[in-house]
Amino acid sequence: MSGIPQAIGELIQEFSRLPGIGKKTAQRLAYYVLDMEREEALGLAKAIARAKDEIQYCELCMNLTETSPCAICSDAKRDSTKILVVEHPRDVLAMERMREYRGKYHVLHGHISPMEGIGPDEIRIQELLKRMQTEPVEEVILATNPTVEGEATAMYLSRLIKPLGVQTTRIAHGIPVGGDLEFADEVTLSKALENRREL
Amino acid sequence: MSGIPQAIGELIQEFSRLPGIGKKTAQRLAYYVLDMEREEALGLAKAIARAKDEIQYCELCMNLTETSPCAICSDAKRDSTKILVVEHPRDVLAMERMREYRGKYHVLHGHISPMEGIGPDEIRIQELLKRMQTEPVEEVILATNPTVEGEATAMYLSRLIKPLGVQTTRIAHGIPVGGDLEFADEVTLSKALENRREL
Repeated sequence: MSGIPQAIGELIQEFSRLPGIGKKTAQRLAYYVLDMEREEALGLAKAIARAKDEIQYCELCMNLTETSPCAICSDAKRDSTKILVVEHPRDVLAMERMREYRGKYHVLHGHISPMEGIGPDEIRIQELLKRMQTEPVEEVILATNPTVEGEATAMYLSRLIKPLGVQTTRIAHGIPVGGDLEFADEVTLSKALENRREL
Repeated sequence: MSGIPQAIGELIQEFSRLPGIGKKTAQRLAYYVLDMEREEALGLAKAIARAKDEIQYCELCMNLTETSPCAICSDAKRDSTKILVVEHPRDVLAMERMREYRGKYHVLHGHISPMEGIGPDEIRIQELLKRMQTEPVEEVILATNPTVEGEATAMYLSRLIKPLGVQTTRIAHGIPVGGDLEFADEVTLSKALENRREL
């Protein structure tokens, strides 16, 4: 970008790498950051570095956490017989906001998508199967997103898990089909969990 | 936010301080950053720190720059008899994209707004008047935004500058009234500059 000091140009470029941030928005953010108090702007920089340094995957559920196993996995009051499987860490957050589910989670970090070249080995399915051997799991609730890929992933998982004699359920389609789990409101999520059906 | 590791919560909070970034978007950005390669994520952190460290105000035009005076102020090929006055550094960028204006700039860093408690002394008007004593200025082009505050600022400036015997012009309202200068396309900006009228 001509006429822009290099340091500003780089900052704009870094912002525009984020999802949903176009060139104009990146520019606006960059100039806003330059207008902020020094300490405030560095607060964002430090929060990024700190999160990258301190956040790791939980060795059990693969959720993002500061300590492994994570707070949910190591909570003895939570029901170890249920594992709710989601695509993303932010989906755990959405479920927890409901304050109703008291079982455990498993984060796949994606979905199976042959179109994008993502096979079963690219997501955390092996880690889930390993847990089923060591934990007293009685039900696996498949809460992948109600998209083509999410459904395919749920089907794939149910075929793997049912032969192990474990109940396999899918959250109900109270969630608008084609939508993303993280944007559903608490009531819809609660309804979807209540109406889960056996696969 | 319950259930979120502190480092992620802080990152979400820092993102949500940026303009136009709500809580959901901040969450999405934070999780995206945690998914990025370490070097890539730290690239954003470093770009913020670097920009804050290296960018300063140009001692003449008050634009953001790595070296003071800035590249435009120290460019001998640019016409020193014209100063185009804008509200924000990003407005200079918009004007430069047009590739037509060859004069100098002055960045006010805001507009006069009694409602927000911003008087003439809160923006860089004194610096502009000082330049008019030392530089061979023949025309001041007022390119503040076509909003109530931008118009008021232009009127205020024209009343200060005209008594000094300097031509004072206002860019034409080719720009949609109520809009922001930075979002105007090059043709509209060019038209607005061409039709500037004496105040």
